[in-house]
Amino acid sequence: MKETGNLSINSENFLPIIKKWLYTDKDIFIRELVSNACDAVTKLKKLMLMGEADHIPAEEAFQVRVLLNKDEKTLQIVDNGIGMTDEEIKKYINQIAFSGAADFLAKYEEKAEGDNEIIGHFGLGFYSAFMVANKVEIDTLSYQQGAAAAKWSCADGIDYEMSDGSRTERGTTITLYLSEDGEEFLDETKLYAALHKYCAFMPVPIFVDILSKEDEAEETPAEKDNTIHISEEEAASLTKEEILAKAQEKTEKTEEEKEEPKPLNDPSPLWLKQPRDCTEEEYKEFYHKVFFDLNDPLFWIHLNMDYPFRLKGILYFPKLVEQMDVVEGQIKLYSNQVYIADNIREVVPEFLLLLKGVLDCPDMPLNVSRSALQNDGYVEKMNSYITKKVADKLNQLFKSDRSAYEGFWDDIGMFFKYGCMREESLYDKIKDALLLKTTDGVYETIAEYLEKNKEKHENKIFFVTDEAQQAQYIRMFKEQGLEAAILTSPVDKPFVSFLEYKNPGVKVQRIDADITDTLQEKKDGEESEAKKQADEYANTKMETLFREALSKEDLKVKAEHLKTASVSAMILLSEDSRRMMEMMEAYGNNEMYKAMFANVKPDETLVLNKSNKLVQFLMDAADQEEKKEDCQMICRQVYDLALMSHRSLTSEEMTAFIDRSGQILEKLAELEK
Amino acid sequence: MKETGNLSINSENFLPIIKKWLYTDKDIFIRELVSNACDAVTKLKKLMLMGEADHIPAEEAFQVRVLLNKDEKTLQIVDNGIGMTDEEIKKYINQIAFSGAADFLAKYEEKAEGDNEIIGHFGLGFYSAFMVANKVEIDTLSYQQGAAAAKWSCADGIDYEMSDGSRTERGTTITLYLSEDGEEFLDETKLYAALHKYCAFMPVPIFVDILSKEDEAEETPAEKDNTIHISEEEAASLTKEEILAKAQEKTEKTEEEKEEPKPLNDPSPLWLKQPRDCTEEEYKEFYHKVFFDLNDPLFWIHLNMDYPFRLKGILYFPKLVEQMDVVEGQIKLYSNQVYIADNIREVVPEFLLLLKGVLDCPDMPLNVSRSALQNDGYVEKMNSYITKKVADKLNQLFKSDRSAYEGFWDDIGMFFKYGCMREESLYDKIKDALLLKTTDGVYETIAEYLEKNKEKHENKIFFVTDEAQQAQYIRMFKEQGLEAAILTSPVDKPFVSFLEYKNPGVKVQRIDADITDTLQEKKDGEESEAKKQADEYANTKMETLFREALSKEDLKVKAEHLKTASVSAMILLSEDSRRMMEMMEAYGNNEMYKAMFANVKPDETLVLNKSNKLVQFLMDAADQEEKKEDCQMICRQVYDLALMSHRSLTSEEMTAFIDRSGQILEKLAELEK
Repeated sequence: MKETGNLSINSENFLPIIKKWLYTDKDIFIRELVSNACDAVTKLKKLMLMGEADHIPAEEAFQVRVLLNKDEKTLQIVDNGIGMTDEEIKKYINQIAFSGAADFLAKYEEKAEGDNEIIGHFGLGFYSAFMVANKVEIDTLSYQQGAAAAKWSCADGIDYEMSDGSRTERGTTITLYLSEDGEEFLDETKLYAALHKYCAFMPVPIFVDILSKEDEAEETPAEKDNTIHISEEEAASLTKEEILAKAQEKTEKTEEEKEEPKPLNDPSPLWLKQPRDCTEEEYKEFYHKVFFDLNDPLFWIHLNMDYPFRLKGILYFPKLVEQMDVVEGQIKLYSNQVYIADNIREVVPEFLLLLKGVLDCPDMPLNVSRSALQNDGYVEKMNSYITKKVADKLNQLFKSDRSAYEGFWDDIGMFFKYGCMREESLYDKIKDALLLKTTDGVYETIAEYLEKNKEKHENKIFFVTDEAQQAQYIRMFKEQGLEAAILTSPVDKPFVSFLEYKNPGVKVQRIDADITDTLQEKKDGEESEAKKQADEYANTKMETLFREALSKEDLKVKAEHLKTASVSAMILLSEDSRRMMEMMEAYGNNEMYKAMFANVKPDETLVLNKSNKLVQFLMDAADQEEKKEDCQMICRQVYDLALMSHRSLTSEEMTAFIDRSGQILEKLAELEK
Repeated sequence: MKETGNLSINSENFLPIIKKWLYTDKDIFIRELVSNACDAVTKLKKLMLMGEADHIPAEEAFQVRVLLNKDEKTLQIVDNGIGMTDEEIKKYINQIAFSGAADFLAKYEEKAEGDNEIIGHFGLGFYSAFMVANKVEIDTLSYQQGAAAAKWSCADGIDYEMSDGSRTERGTTITLYLSEDGEEFLDETKLYAALHKYCAFMPVPIFVDILSKEDEAEETPAEKDNTIHISEEEAASLTKEEILAKAQEKTEKTEEEKEEPKPLNDPSPLWLKQPRDCTEEEYKEFYHKVFFDLNDPLFWIHLNMDYPFRLKGILYFPKLVEQMDVVEGQIKLYSNQVYIADNIREVVPEFLLLLKGVLDCPDMPLNVSRSALQNDGYVEKMNSYITKKVADKLNQLFKSDRSAYEGFWDDIGMFFKYGCMREESLYDKIKDALLLKTTDGVYETIAEYLEKNKEKHENKIFFVTDEAQQAQYIRMFKEQGLEAAILTSPVDKPFVSFLEYKNPGVKVQRIDADITDTLQEKKDGEESEAKKQADEYANTKMETLFREALSKEDLKVKAEHLKTASVSAMILLSEDSRRMMEMMEAYGNNEMYKAMFANVKPDETLVLNKSNKLVQFLMDAADQEEKKEDCQMICRQVYDLALMSHRSLTSEEMTAFIDRSGQILEKLAELEK
């Protein structure tokens, strides 16, 4: 017994899947039906170009009309494109999943020179109509000479009825009788929002008509102005896009009365133009309009690739606007001018997600799963192309106008540091254009910084994490002609380690990790044994004094001759120790790390400055019993002042410090009397 | 001309959709095929219970086996369940989208008392096999007496072949000949990872066998230990789940040799038990195992609902582990013990996403789109049930053991504050159990705080945002028997406004927004005109002095008799003004807000304490020209000390302050000589 056959599909079960599973957003039917209508026009245009169809009369313009009838609860999508014959309906509509677009392309492939501008892929889009309608009708008249109008109607998504059509002009009308699921689109705000979202750049002019008896009766000319009135409750229930759509809708309505109606969409978006034909103003205007950002972008990259794959788009580098929220960009993805989605992580290189921009990738395999996209060869190629373009732009800006480039750096630096860590190939391409802003207020590349400071500290980069807290150290650095990089943003913490990893042999450390020789008075040649002993004695004496005054038995104290006399003391903590402490602070409460950190102690040293008068006073007074109390008070104050430059004081430390500061002033006032 | 018909579906186009569109993750075929196998066993069990099938021999145990043959590149899923006849294959397999589960349930609905434990819904799961295999075989023998074994095979997803089967024991074997797309599952680590992810709690014991010539040749007994060896590169390429799977797999392998093999899964997960039958240890063990968290949870809620909808699960309140990352919970969603996904925002109330837990919702309409879920009645009901359960648990803990409850508060407070703001109905339910931790180290409800402090400041809640910075104010508060709530976490900023919104008439303000009368010396009855004039004069004198010393012409200065003599001065900024300043800081760089903030100036006042000796010295010395320099230095220091308690100093302020502090100490040391 052997038997073969074809797997068959039960259509009764298929529609629920189409309706509920295939599309995550209900409003996507707008995208599918309007892009089908655009396709119908594009197809006819192609046939005309190839001489396969008659040219249309000069006074007729290709267009798609969206008609909402609130009273009838219908939504119509009307095009004057290629139309369908009776036979074509049977082939393309009655057989689910037979893609008309694929068929059309296969037929005209040679003549069309492989230039694929047809939107549809699977031919399933039409059925999305049943997500919002319980009855769908097609009225259509084919462009073919002598064709008869045809009508198709389906009330349940399973059984259809076909009959002679009534349409007298070439094209197709899709009529949706909105179901309960689709009633929300009777609200024109929702309809406009969906149209603006998906169709803003579709290639055929789109016009919208709203019909409602109620509106006609109520609306008087006096009421028409350009402002929109939204109550607080209404505003709360609408998304930002919906409010903007409302405003635009109103403007459009008002404009319509004044002059020629304008299409809702921009059929020739800027990204399709040749970069050489675009002006700076156009780029900025496009940015303001698409991203609702009143600020100008810093600069942009126009992607325009046709071979070996097609990728067009514009990436904008926005001005950094500090907000409480994390900086988040917006990359809008299009396929042949049809909006697909924002910020698809699987498609766009992750570091780009901090930018704003549009990408039109008609070759992107959009119908495959997201996890498949991650390993897709096309996506990989696209990503490395974009990365290269971004790197090229950066290097070009760096080389052509260094001062303008430095002006951008505060805004774009964080983005590129993040990008380099996410995508090492980006680092390799732009490493010579990465800047460090230093405490001298200048911007230097890493190579420049290392070269400039190599006499003073070879292969070492110093940085500050908090300019206010570490002001004391910065001052000392400046006085000795040293400079430190200002690395204060959250991305800088991992970036420091990343820099070390990419620059073996270079040590990157915080300004209070170490006292370079440059900060200290030079020792005169070989030190005598007596001098050494004296130093040793002084160190011990100071250590004893401070330990007692502060009740800190483990405190390490060391006296040095610093060049900056005004600084009395500083606290040093080695870079490794500090990084470990930071990890402990972040993860110390986690059971998994507790054992690891059990024996970690900060490797801290209090360095006293022997050039400072106060320290000299302490050296002299330490042995004098009658000055003990004053000495101890001064010790505590000196220590706190050093601590404040190193980290934030705790609650108790702060209280003690402020009290003591007051007492010192009172004492001084007392003595002055 | 009229014509009617059925929509038909082209299966050649259907499979690509199944393969690439329907499932976002490739490994989902494991879920579909293993849950089908479990269903086959569950169905047979049901028939046995109903007397419709013979009982199986005592020595035979129901099970599902997963067999990987690395050499043959096949993966088999074998069950000893209900099996299929030739006819059933034709019905359930050859007709795509005819759900066998639906059919089975419809048939036995009455007898099975509506108790739906069958996993499959659409009957599409089987075809997911073609995502990873280019050829799929079914060998099956039905439980029915006299049934013949049947075999089905399909090499392209379109044409099938059926023949007599060879299986002699009841049940079904699915054999996948892995394609290039599926080869990754030859790596047992990937296979185990998928099994642990989807099948960990499926209702039939699952066993795994890995077959490979290579392994047999290489593996010697000495090599077998319980540790796993993963190179650094390997570790980097694996996800955490995969590493854990590797470790578990190794343990399981080792255990298998010692004793009876243990199933990979736990067929009776804790959430299915009655809460009264679960011990504390079981809850904790389940938590550790499922969430890889070594810490014990604080407490948990066992959800166990059968009517009007089924919802089982356990929600754990984790101990707060401070990390750099934002706290993020993990809510694992199951449907009849089949893992669906983590953290589905559309299903779980948003505030729950900070918790850890499992939810088994067999009635959840999982196959509808996510946007549809958001408005789904079932989801709404489930959410309000969960919210109620969470609120009940909290109130019960609060009432039954206040001291234990207070011990939890630091860990759970942030979660509930967030929850209340997201879900106002939660606030209404738990408002009497919300605690404020105060500067007195006690926990009070809002009502308790207001009641306790009503004599001192009616309908006012004071709070601190930074205990170290505001230590000065806290001390003053404490000395006068006042207390402030400690609201230092990011969620507290919006929570303060939320509290005011929910408690009209109650003003919530930072500790330095206002000086309550309690902090000031009582004025003796009616003040004389002379006294008022003297005060006015003193105010003006101090204002002139400070304005000149600080070069701040706009500075407002006021002298008051504070009870705490040690405080020399403080800076007051009204609550409204501070909130406005914070907004400005956050949004001030945004073009849209710039105009709004253009004229905003902080409403700051320097309050001098006439009870303080230093201030008294300044009052006396202000007129004496020879003390001017000292006075100015003291003024600056007094102002900076007040400023430090109010906000962080800027870089310049910090440098100036530290320098001046050193000079003051030097001066004192000089005078002491």
